[in-house]
Amino acid sequence: MPAPHLQPLLRTSNSKIILLILDGLGGLPIEPGGTTELEAAATPNLDRLAVEGALGQTIPIRPGITPGSGPAHLALFGYDPIEYLVGRGALEATGIGLEVRPGDVAVRGNFCTLDAAGNITDRRAGRISTEQAAPLVELLKSISLPGVELQVRQLKEYRFAVVMRGDGLNDQIPDTDPQRTGVPPHPVTASVPAAARTASLYQQWVDAARALLKDQPHANGLTLRGFGSDPQLPSFQISYGLNPACVAVYPMYKGVSQLVGMKVLGFPGESPEDEFAAVAAAWNDYDFFFVHIKKTDSKGEDGDFAGKAAIIESVDKALPTLLRLNPDVLVVTGDHSTPARMKSHSWHPVPLLLWSQDRSLPDQQTRFGERSCALGGLGTFPATDIMPLALAHAGRLDKYGA
Amino acid sequence: MPAPHLQPLLRTSNSKIILLILDGLGGLPIEPGGTTELEAAATPNLDRLAVEGALGQTIPIRPGITPGSGPAHLALFGYDPIEYLVGRGALEATGIGLEVRPGDVAVRGNFCTLDAAGNITDRRAGRISTEQAAPLVELLKSISLPGVELQVRQLKEYRFAVVMRGDGLNDQIPDTDPQRTGVPPHPVTASVPAAARTASLYQQWVDAARALLKDQPHANGLTLRGFGSDPQLPSFQISYGLNPACVAVYPMYKGVSQLVGMKVLGFPGESPEDEFAAVAAAWNDYDFFFVHIKKTDSKGEDGDFAGKAAIIESVDKALPTLLRLNPDVLVVTGDHSTPARMKSHSWHPVPLLLWSQDRSLPDQQTRFGERSCALGGLGTFPATDIMPLALAHAGRLDKYGA
Repeated sequence: MPAPHLQPLLRTSNSKIILLILDGLGGLPIEPGGTTELEAAATPNLDRLAVEGALGQTIPIRPGITPGSGPAHLALFGYDPIEYLVGRGALEATGIGLEVRPGDVAVRGNFCTLDAAGNITDRRAGRISTEQAAPLVELLKSISLPGVELQVRQLKEYRFAVVMRGDGLNDQIPDTDPQRTGVPPHPVTASVPAAARTASLYQQWVDAARALLKDQPHANGLTLRGFGSDPQLPSFQISYGLNPACVAVYPMYKGVSQLVGMKVLGFPGESPEDEFAAVAAAWNDYDFFFVHIKKTDSKGEDGDFAGKAAIIESVDKALPTLLRLNPDVLVVTGDHSTPARMKSHSWHPVPLLLWSQDRSLPDQQTRFGERSCALGGLGTFPATDIMPLALAHAGRLDKYGA
Repeated sequence: MPAPHLQPLLRTSNSKIILLILDGLGGLPIEPGGTTELEAAATPNLDRLAVEGALGQTIPIRPGITPGSGPAHLALFGYDPIEYLVGRGALEATGIGLEVRPGDVAVRGNFCTLDAAGNITDRRAGRISTEQAAPLVELLKSISLPGVELQVRQLKEYRFAVVMRGDGLNDQIPDTDPQRTGVPPHPVTASVPAAARTASLYQQWVDAARALLKDQPHANGLTLRGFGSDPQLPSFQISYGLNPACVAVYPMYKGVSQLVGMKVLGFPGESPEDEFAAVAAAWNDYDFFFVHIKKTDSKGEDGDFAGKAAIIESVDKALPTLLRLNPDVLVVTGDHSTPARMKSHSWHPVPLLLWSQDRSLPDQQTRFGERSCALGGLGTFPATDIMPLALAHAGRLDKYGA
């Protein structure tokens, strides 16, 4: 249970909270002495909210730790990611609608290319298209193993997910992706003795897959990453008394939302405007909306400083759609930093804006950006504190003690 | 193990980290409304690093706690000093080359003067010189006790160290120094029943020493402080994957470095320039350098505001020797505050500067000083977070989760 001291304080309320996540929001100057992506972007709406609300910066996991997307989102949702470890396989499989029950072991797979000696030549098989990968996934669906049920489903491009169901399975298995070329994929091994049978079953599955793929032109091998089970997380309903919905485009974020009890909303399109319209359409049915914008992170990973700033501007431009809904609390932040300068996730603190109808601590900051957030009234704090702060500003927490 | 969540994330790297500690760096205005020692000092090199890097302030132990030097350094090294208690006796004995094995009980001694009634008249025997104290230490070396081995070695001036080795020893023994004159030294007593025999043995040793010293003109008594054993700290090699070296002048800091696996480097001289030259000489052989400047603390203890500022200026002036080595990460901070105004260690947060090649969070601060550090981008954080941050900025930590 995240923050169990909240339990006796939860108060029923009609108030509504929006948690707007710009993935990888935090950045760095692309040149020494310059602005960050967020500081460079023209964000009149966010800046007005910064004046009315309060700023701060969050530590996603622990100081110095660069978060993966799964743990970073668990932290945003209030679940300490050091305490609650969830394999990405379980998150992605759940996100594309595969059911991952407690005891199942899910994993994410990447198609790759292997040379004659079995060494990896391209870890993503040249990023083959979804269409090219589809028949390969169909081949994998034909594999069966004794004593377990298998489900395989395609993700985007060169990626897929596998769920294994049976008695006595265990997800303590490291990735088989060696993270470099010129070497073969790692064999499937167990990190703990209890996972030995599961590792052996997955190795049999890999051997069968290799035999089926060996003459395929686009990809003749695969690697497995993020073995994981349903972590049986306490739900948002129980943890916070909220009825939550998720508006996201990518499977991984839908997956982690479902694991904490969110209803994943379907909607047409995938722009920020489309996502905010989806919130508006479902406004009366939920009291908490997690809205996930992916492309800030993608542009950061690409090293595209201007592109990342442009995505932030497009979010700012669409923001009035959310504001017209008159939320009680709007939190705008990231799950982690993805500086275009580094072309990767990073450990840096993440800028945060907490706006509420009329309960925000005033501070001296008037713009939403890294430097102003470092001077914001909320200070520097763990991301797991965002949910208690949101609940408080939404009038959803009683007094502690008399 | 400090920060055990770092273990699976440690990455091999050729990057190099310098942790430059100005002992007792933090200060206060000597007059209300004035500057601190650090703010008063002209520090053009540190100020340039402040522009390029990020500032913050650290809490050495817990808020409001004034640290001793031992716990403060453990915190800098990432070991929570509330969890890892190390007696100063073990630190100082180790620092002067006495071996303190697990199970040994070491302690630091001070010569003092006693009147005819046995009450202390001077707790430091008039700060007798090293030369005056040497024959007294020789007398102490002649003492033997049944069933244990004893080693005695002189420290500077009126100080010495004792190491007792034998079966079933225990270091849970309070200081015998009453911290005031006009009263006798405390008897050696046990804090826990398991330490009763050790206390009794040390009392026998004290009685024998009193008999040997009774007619000595410079000092006729002694007190014992900081009973401690080897705390068996996890090494830097294991905790952080680092090959660390220590450059320090005083035994205590060499001792605490050795206890975490650092190689203590010998070098001629003792000025900041001499210490930095020692780093340069060993640059290729280690990937982490702890560099300790003592005199900032000494001047603070003396109440010498201008003297402390001058030491800071001498460090700044010598800094190019370190910068020419092109470290990946340079952290400049103190182990605690020693405001000249207070003539003692204090609990105040400690200014910190974290510079890295090109990965520093930008903030709005342009000078290294208490007021700017309080507004720095790194916020206010426990000193035990310095090491994870240094490792991250040096590219020595993998991502947590996918």
